[in-house]
Amino acid sequence: MDPLIVNLGARSYPIYIGAGLLHDETLLQQHITGHQALIVSNETVAPLYLEQVKSAYKSIQTDVILLPDGERYKSLDVLKEIFDILIQKKHQRDTTIIALGGGVVGDIAGFAAACYQRGVNLVQIPTTLLAQVDSSVGGKTAVNHPMAKNMIGAFHQPKCVIIDVSVLNTLDKRQFRSGLAEVIKYGIGFDRIFFEWLEQDMPQLLQMSHDHLITAIKKSCLIKANIVSEDEREQGLRALLNLGHTFGHAIETAGEYKQWLHGEAVAIGLYLAADLSNRMGYLPTSEVSRVKALLERTGFITHRPREVSVNQFMETMSRDKKIIKGQQRYILLKAIGDAFICPDVPLKMVTDCLEAALG
Amino acid sequence: MDPLIVNLGARSYPIYIGAGLLHDETLLQQHITGHQALIVSNETVAPLYLEQVKSAYKSIQTDVILLPDGERYKSLDVLKEIFDILIQKKHQRDTTIIALGGGVVGDIAGFAAACYQRGVNLVQIPTTLLAQVDSSVGGKTAVNHPMAKNMIGAFHQPKCVIIDVSVLNTLDKRQFRSGLAEVIKYGIGFDRIFFEWLEQDMPQLLQMSHDHLITAIKKSCLIKANIVSEDEREQGLRALLNLGHTFGHAIETAGEYKQWLHGEAVAIGLYLAADLSNRMGYLPTSEVSRVKALLERTGFITHRPREVSVNQFMETMSRDKKIIKGQQRYILLKAIGDAFICPDVPLKMVTDCLEAALG
Repeated sequence: MDPLIVNLGARSYPIYIGAGLLHDETLLQQHITGHQALIVSNETVAPLYLEQVKSAYKSIQTDVILLPDGERYKSLDVLKEIFDILIQKKHQRDTTIIALGGGVVGDIAGFAAACYQRGVNLVQIPTTLLAQVDSSVGGKTAVNHPMAKNMIGAFHQPKCVIIDVSVLNTLDKRQFRSGLAEVIKYGIGFDRIFFEWLEQDMPQLLQMSHDHLITAIKKSCLIKANIVSEDEREQGLRALLNLGHTFGHAIETAGEYKQWLHGEAVAIGLYLAADLSNRMGYLPTSEVSRVKALLERTGFITHRPREVSVNQFMETMSRDKKIIKGQQRYILLKAIGDAFICPDVPLKMVTDCLEAALG
Repeated sequence: MDPLIVNLGARSYPIYIGAGLLHDETLLQQHITGHQALIVSNETVAPLYLEQVKSAYKSIQTDVILLPDGERYKSLDVLKEIFDILIQKKHQRDTTIIALGGGVVGDIAGFAAACYQRGVNLVQIPTTLLAQVDSSVGGKTAVNHPMAKNMIGAFHQPKCVIIDVSVLNTLDKRQFRSGLAEVIKYGIGFDRIFFEWLEQDMPQLLQMSHDHLITAIKKSCLIKANIVSEDEREQGLRALLNLGHTFGHAIETAGEYKQWLHGEAVAIGLYLAADLSNRMGYLPTSEVSRVKALLERTGFITHRPREVSVNQFMETMSRDKKIIKGQQRYILLKAIGDAFICPDVPLKMVTDCLEAALG
């Protein structure tokens, strides 16, 4: 199996994608260079896969920390608990942190790896579709602030990413669907042919055919890897990957990260981005409809939830990280497969779009 | 005034060194690119210099956070307070964090700048000699863990460093002397001629002659800048800058960062490193005596404090960040001005050195 490579000079790394990879001890050991590892996982994933992964590291000091499951534990307080165990167990600069779990585990374990002793090795083993196609690739790590998501973090690339599609069999169906929002995002924003494949093959994907999963994940990771290789630290191009996310984060924040899953919020955000693109005169109405149709066939709602007012949207978005010189930049679409950064969207256009999107 | 340049490609930056620089509004404004700034200072420095610095930023949003003074406030809890104000005041990705203070302020403000929104601009205005010759240059940022110093941090280079020697006039004499330990370190480790200059001109330096201060700080920053340019992330060469620090950190930890100032602990560490170098057969006894004499003439004690047992040293040093594959590496001297990394010092040699150093 040839891995995908994220090209970042001295920080380049492979992404392995396949079925049953967690049984491949050689692969799991391949990128460990020191004599210590800390596996960061959570209470949901550990009973299923921890022993299997841990058994590959019998010959070195392997410690484990299990976090409670959920976005609200992606906090500075939980981060501190990871540092506590690293220090108590005397982990040294050549240790490896292994993130075994979804996006929360990957983001917080990744940030711990970025900061512990100013940076130690990281291996990402994502166990949710969302983490497999998005957060485990590209080196963005973070914790949330009570007032805003992912506000505190670092760019820290892993040594490798190991994506085993078999683990998706045990993933909660709602979580699985949530991950599909990011897969669809890659089609909508960056690859029209992939979008058309999704329109056609969504039923098989929803049935979790391994072949279809591998195809969709490979394509998603390839698109992300190419963008990250061009712009590791989000100086420009990489911001395009936030398509749908400015709106999505506002919804997640309003629901205090509990009510809507990330992908569910992003799905609404993708529709709003398409609609706003149309209002701005970029995206034809027929393409907005195709975006909406694919999202709804995947099982997402695409209207604005009643619980989230236009004001709440505007307030949360005013704290968005993508704001430069006081100017909110929106990621819009010229066509399906062609996202771009639009720096000058009138506020009125955004509020109109939000008003109209009420379900 | 030509600044020193720290050469790091796209991350290169100038260090301005002179008397009265805090009155130079153009200089203070020069490296601010956005429309927001957060000045991080402390309760000791702010009454003296905050208004002066703040007045240079009248035309942009300038917020201020004052930290309590002291190494024990270089904590995750205080870091969180900096994030709180950045978010409450809606600081965006183009904001600049201005560190106005000593090493604690520079390290924690620098780490906040490294992590806030995954990295924002940083300007260092160090107000202690220690910060001017060491922590403000080179991009190391960190907070302490209760069990170990500087355990959580990042490499994050500033946009510029502004060193005004006039501010040293208001610096506590013990703090000033503490900074001289780092100045002496540059001589001992990297520049024999500078060491000889220090042997000769220490009286004028202790009297805080501006000319002597500028010479000593320029030389110190130049040595550090050259090493950092070669090895930004401490993969090799940069570890040499830790001369005296492995022992020094053990003393600071034993005193819970309260009993001994950093430089006082480093001074003892410098003597211990020289003595250990001699025991290992590298440094002639006559040179150990010169190191000891210069440290003592500067006002430092060079023996091991009675309160810190050999066991305490060994325990703290076993958690040292410089440990690689379980092997402690010591920075030793082949001669005054010629430090090197020694990976194979027998434990017995270290304990002998510590036993003998009791005052």
